[in-house]
Amino acid sequence: MTGAGPTAIIAGRGGLAAIVAAALERPFVAAIEGFAPEGLVPDLVFRVERLVPFLDHLADRGVTRVVFAGAVQRPRLDPALFDPATARLVPRLLAAMQGGDDAALRGAIALFEEAGLEVVGVDQVAPGLVPGPGILAGTVTEGDRRDAARAASIVQALGAVDVGQGAVVAQGLCLGVEALPGTDALLDFVARTGAALRPDPQGARGLLYKAPKPGQDRRVDLPAIGPETVARAAAAGLAGIAWAAGGVLLLDRAATVAAAQDKGLFLWSRGE
Amino acid sequence: MTGAGPTAIIAGRGGLAAIVAAALERPFVAAIEGFAPEGLVPDLVFRVERLVPFLDHLADRGVTRVVFAGAVQRPRLDPALFDPATARLVPRLLAAMQGGDDAALRGAIALFEEAGLEVVGVDQVAPGLVPGPGILAGTVTEGDRRDAARAASIVQALGAVDVGQGAVVAQGLCLGVEALPGTDALLDFVARTGAALRPDPQGARGLLYKAPKPGQDRRVDLPAIGPETVARAAAAGLAGIAWAAGGVLLLDRAATVAAAQDKGLFLWSRGE
Repeated sequence: MTGAGPTAIIAGRGGLAAIVAAALERPFVAAIEGFAPEGLVPDLVFRVERLVPFLDHLADRGVTRVVFAGAVQRPRLDPALFDPATARLVPRLLAAMQGGDDAALRGAIALFEEAGLEVVGVDQVAPGLVPGPGILAGTVTEGDRRDAARAASIVQALGAVDVGQGAVVAQGLCLGVEALPGTDALLDFVARTGAALRPDPQGARGLLYKAPKPGQDRRVDLPAIGPETVARAAAAGLAGIAWAAGGVLLLDRAATVAAAQDKGLFLWSRGE
Repeated sequence: MTGAGPTAIIAGRGGLAAIVAAALERPFVAAIEGFAPEGLVPDLVFRVERLVPFLDHLADRGVTRVVFAGAVQRPRLDPALFDPATARLVPRLLAAMQGGDDAALRGAIALFEEAGLEVVGVDQVAPGLVPGPGILAGTVTEGDRRDAARAASIVQALGAVDVGQGAVVAQGLCLGVEALPGTDALLDFVARTGAALRPDPQGARGLLYKAPKPGQDRRVDLPAIGPETVARAAAAGLAGIAWAAGGVLLLDRAATVAAAQDKGLFLWSRGE
């Protein structure tokens, strides 16, 4: 911890907020209504329509630092609930929410920073969650390395138009691309559609590749991998999961590695 | 028709080959084993493992011009079936088949051209299949126009890495991206996953956008739209279908327009 006041965690869905909270001394946990985190009870639940009073409340509590932890899909806005100050932000809120993920997140960071709060990344408060280069489970073949290189170029091209953070490639062929529905939906799609599309039945079974978008602000919405990702990758017939080292959250590392070993999948934190 | 000999149609799956055949005087129709066209009986069925004898056969028949019509997914290769001449092409065949769609198609065109055949596009033998700019059904809103512009930029970025020819965008958000499994699989994916992802329930319902890849050789594998595309787009809750004018095949125009009118979807052949 730095600074005098507590760090505020803006908790989204999933277990990340609880993991981050465990790494902090005196966290103040806030969650958007309708996007409850798992494994911890928020100190405060707020709505986007009342963002300005919420930011004032953080200031009153002496909060100086904020970390976003977990997925928040775009909440629906109820016009009746806006306070006058937040109502003045509606054009900015709508512009952010109608852009891609990056635009939405840049907009959110800007609003918090303008309220005098420092926005930091999960890796700054819990560095163990973001693996550096290395193979964490299984074996990576030359075919897997080619597939990872191709998938990385696809994810990079998608990032340039602010779409997705993942792709599935097998034997050089792109079996699926991540869009708004997310990684689990992508893997389920490949499980349903990909089996007959690999040209060589004995060839590389393919991989999921995850990376932040090029130029993405790494303080929010880093792609994440966990035991459930391994289970869905196995169901999709993949050989493993690779990701950009230093740019992806590994949730529950022990359980994720154990699941990969159990299913015979590799986990590869791929350096440049 | 030009030239003295017949034009050969390399027929893939679907009804396109029959439509193209109807536009030609004396077509010679060949199909790859396992990829039978609909609505016509091929004059010859061949296997990729015996490509050189097939090309020799075309020459013997006096064929000078070839048009590719319909989808051919990558066939599996049986090592036992290669003739010696085609066996010498295996490195090129494998390199083409392990690349993306463009690489595979460029490879196929090159092999036919090296055999002395002129490879032409469907639009050259049946220009009515490729609509120019205009709205063919329904009404296009300003929101739809914004979504189409965003989808076009996404498809263009994907084309740069040789992935897909389509995307679904609603209210600026990318609900899905086409990869190897194709347009129908994309629309089914959006039908399953997209309903809850549109921020404004009263806002634009989104559209499927199709375009050839930038720099794509338009002699092969133009994206195609037909009545089935309309049915699946309707099932996915979309407002309509837009495409790059002059770059997309409209199969069975009358039935496609009627289906769109019946479902209340727009069909928009979008100029630059």
